[in-house]
Amino acid sequence: MSNVKTGSALIQGRDVVSLSTFSEEEIRAVVARARSLKAEGFEAPLRGRSLAMVFFDPSLRTRASFAIAFTTLGGTVIDLSAERDLWPLEIRDGAVMDGLADEHIKDAARVLSEYADVIAIRALARGGDWARERRDRVIVSFQKYATVPIFNMESVLDHPCQAWGDALTLEEELGELRGKCMALVWTYHPKARPLAVPHGVSVMACKLGMDLAVAHPEGYPLDQGVMTTLRHTAASTGSELRFVDDPMAAAEGADVVYAASWGSLDLHGRAEAEKERRESHRDRRVTSELMDRTNDARFMHAMPIRRNVEADDAVVDAAGSLVVPQAGNRLHIQRALFTSVLGVE
Amino acid sequence: MSNVKTGSALIQGRDVVSLSTFSEEEIRAVVARARSLKAEGFEAPLRGRSLAMVFFDPSLRTRASFAIAFTTLGGTVIDLSAERDLWPLEIRDGAVMDGLADEHIKDAARVLSEYADVIAIRALARGGDWARERRDRVIVSFQKYATVPIFNMESVLDHPCQAWGDALTLEEELGELRGKCMALVWTYHPKARPLAVPHGVSVMACKLGMDLAVAHPEGYPLDQGVMTTLRHTAASTGSELRFVDDPMAAAEGADVVYAASWGSLDLHGRAEAEKERRESHRDRRVTSELMDRTNDARFMHAMPIRRNVEADDAVVDAAGSLVVPQAGNRLHIQRALFTSVLGVE
Amino acid sequence: MSNVKTGSALIQGRDVVSLSTFSEEEIRAVVARARSLKAEGFEAPLRGRSLAMVFFDPSLRTRASFAIAFTTLGGTVIDLSAERDLWPLEIRDGAVMDGLADEHIKDAARVLSEYADVIAIRALARGGDWARERRDRVIVSFQKYATVPIFNMESVLDHPCQAWGDALTLEEELGELRGKCMALVWTYHPKARPLAVPHGVSVMACKLGMDLAVAHPEGYPLDQGVMTTLRHTAASTGSELRFVDDPMAAAEGADVVYAASWGSLDLHGRAEAEKERRESHRDRRVTSELMDRTNDARFMHAMPIRRNVEADDAVVDAAGSLVVPQAGNRLHIQRALFTSVLGVE
Repeated sequence: MSNVKTGSALIQGRDVVSLSTFSEEEIRAVVARARSLKAEGFEAPLRGRSLAMVFFDPSLRTRASFAIAFTTLGGTVIDLSAERDLWPLEIRDGAVMDGLADEHIKDAARVLSEYADVIAIRALARGGDWARERRDRVIVSFQKYATVPIFNMESVLDHPCQAWGDALTLEEELGELRGKCMALVWTYHPKARPLAVPHGVSVMACKLGMDLAVAHPEGYPLDQGVMTTLRHTAASTGSELRFVDDPMAAAEGADVVYAASWGSLDLHGRAEAEKERRESHRDRRVTSELMDRTNDARFMHAMPIRRNVEADDAVVDAAGSLVVPQAGNRLHIQRALFTSVLGVE
Repeated sequence: MSNVKTGSALIQGRDVVSLSTFSEEEIRAVVARARSLKAEGFEAPLRGRSLAMVFFDPSLRTRASFAIAFTTLGGTVIDLSAERDLWPLEIRDGAVMDGLADEHIKDAARVLSEYADVIAIRALARGGDWARERRDRVIVSFQKYATVPIFNMESVLDHPCQAWGDALTLEEELGELRGKCMALVWTYHPKARPLAVPHGVSVMACKLGMDLAVAHPEGYPLDQGVMTTLRHTAASTGSELRFVDDPMAAAEGADVVYAASWGSLDLHGRAEAEKERRESHRDRRVTSELMDRTNDARFMHAMPIRRNVEADDAVVDAAGSLVVPQAGNRLHIQRALFTSVLGVE
Repeated sequence: MSNVKTGSALIQGRDVVSLSTFSEEEIRAVVARARSLKAEGFEAPLRGRSLAMVFFDPSLRTRASFAIAFTTLGGTVIDLSAERDLWPLEIRDGAVMDGLADEHIKDAARVLSEYADVIAIRALARGGDWARERRDRVIVSFQKYATVPIFNMESVLDHPCQAWGDALTLEEELGELRGKCMALVWTYHPKARPLAVPHGVSVMACKLGMDLAVAHPEGYPLDQGVMTTLRHTAASTGSELRFVDDPMAAAEGADVVYAASWGSLDLHGRAEAEKERRESHRDRRVTSELMDRTNDARFMHAMPIRRNVEADDAVVDAAGSLVVPQAGNRLHIQRALFTSVLGVE
């Protein structure tokens, strides 16, 4: 239990926006707290506390798991969906607001900070140029102006609660993760999918000392800044980090295959050109043949999953598939994070 | 109280999708528990438990009464409205998901089962052929794949919580219901209305041994499968079951007149042809003249009601009108069902 | 504390629709209770109670602060957004409902009264003629038919919880308000804004004996009925009440400058003509120069605020700006109102 309490003390008051801002020790301490809460249950330590969830984009898993995690701990949740509840927000400092926006993000963030003890934000890319989108201006502005901790419920760049919950699932399945091998495999999907999950999961794997092989076709690299983070992290934790084209090569000897699809960054916001590039990789999906190359690997995916397009039914429904428990663990990791960040036992 | 505890034990872990799947004893035990909760109050037995409500169609009464029933018992509710929060769901087993649907209903149901202790679904007909719609594939799929109890908040075929609450209201008003007479009267409505309420209420009346006279114009029978259930149920409980055309004949001597409108099944999904058939019955509404034929009958309707179209103001606002208390009793019967199905006192 | 308890006893069971229906003593008692709750905290006095919020128009601050105030006191909230959850409501008595409306407001109000202990309504103008809109028929109908207290979350005419919270903020900043001077200053805004805030705030100021100077351009008077109320109130509390054109004249010696924009009533619902009239006042905004004329005044605005259009950044972000605390005080005044109206300590 001393580990668990340390975890709480370590990250009290912190924003949860990217695993890259937490140390390996902090990440492990939160996982330990989640295991403890999951095993031992809890009372209502968040009684009187409130969470404001602001969705600029739709959500099922994240909405449900955030709300249920917070309220079953005794807290109160207000669910604000930006498309219907918020006016369009001005983001530029000093703007003369005579256009569409009725409110500045500065004021929205400061007012919500009056009502809520935590603010959680989902804000994905708007289909613009990647160099601009990757600045994650909505969540960065909330971090700048809010006076309470900010939780990232998926931004353009990252999805830390997904990754942190996956760490819990992996530790439950594989025990100590240092030296275990993850293959992160790009799969075909009819649409260009966000980068937040592959980014978050890669950072998590390197932070915890796993070896990581990322397999993707030409033209589908991860973000340059994230790759720099990965290389620095791997150097400090001793992770072996590889980027390959062939999924079979990545799967060789892997302890876990993590399937994900993502869009091409140099064609970000240019849907037709991106689609044309992607269509030549329609056959990239996780099959039983691929799983046979591994070290009896577990299968993971952040969901929603396109069955028989991203991965075959035989893989998704296999005994080693963790897709359902990893969704369930979102609840437990988020309970650990809320109580740690708010500094309650 | 022993009755009440028996009720709980009897239905713990069951899906609540249709009264036709419950015995008369079980139905009566839940009504008794609702009366007890209503009279004696309750603490917070659902603390730490959560309900996921999934609406594929809009709702006022059901949304409000489900949420308030569960949360005033100490539980937590997450309200997912499918049109904005869920991706379109794939329903076919083994499908290659390269179309519109981003997620299989199997995965949505399994993931929600990780977060919630109960899943409640509203999924009405989509305007297709009746033979296909009546299979109630959304709720049946959730029953198949979810690992927690499923509550029906109105499906194509049934609306059990409405009917169960109506049983509570009737028992409060008339005492023992065996041998009492219900006239279920088809009324005109500008739109073709769903069948779920007349189905659910008919099954409830027969299950509890009431005599039932259903009055509807030619071309507006109930579903064939439901009629078979009604005949079997009536035979076992001793209900007298009649189908007539003339509302006055049905009302003769009735203890309760239940007004409802529903569409024509052989024209299901063919709005114009159905509309033409229905227009010739514009004068079918519940009037004071009809109520005068009865045994000083109570008036019921599941709401929303079109005043002076389905029933005259004089009937809806009469002393014997139960439309408001029957809406209120949704709260009490659902508290009884939640605690019974979850096995808490 | 005796004051506080008196406040509770005084307004138990009352509708909260306009400050004009409360006495000065009642208004002050609720402010005192809010200060006490804010300073001393609270347990969960609303456990088992429920609030139904019905939004016919969008909301951020009001939605968040109503929900969080009620639930952190232990209560349960159901959030109904009329555009998606309610059918269009019939409002005329005795109507033959063969048109668009599926439900009469009478029945909606009575049914919600079965589920909730308080009903809160937001219903703004629909862009019609002012003589008709000012009748506030939605909220008046809910008051007529509901059997539980009605809270106004902003109607066509009034926004009492905003004004009441502003009274709390002013008292915290300025101490006793009698004889203090408020300048209510009309500002330009690209759209014709509602009248509810200036109405509510004016009535509050006069009720509490503040001197009030309202500055607005020709063609932008407050509602005639509200002005009659203001004159009567000012006569009884000794407020000095002035209506001027020049904002500088109103600001002279003021202790607080309250900025607000509102539409022209004789052009209500005629957007283009109103826009043309308003455009000639594009330069009406609160600047540092205006603030320099005051008695070191505090700056207030109900938000959302158009920065550098309604008021300059230098004013909104100044040390004397109360825009954030006044939003925060919504939470505290509403907690005081809920517990007072429901008669719990």
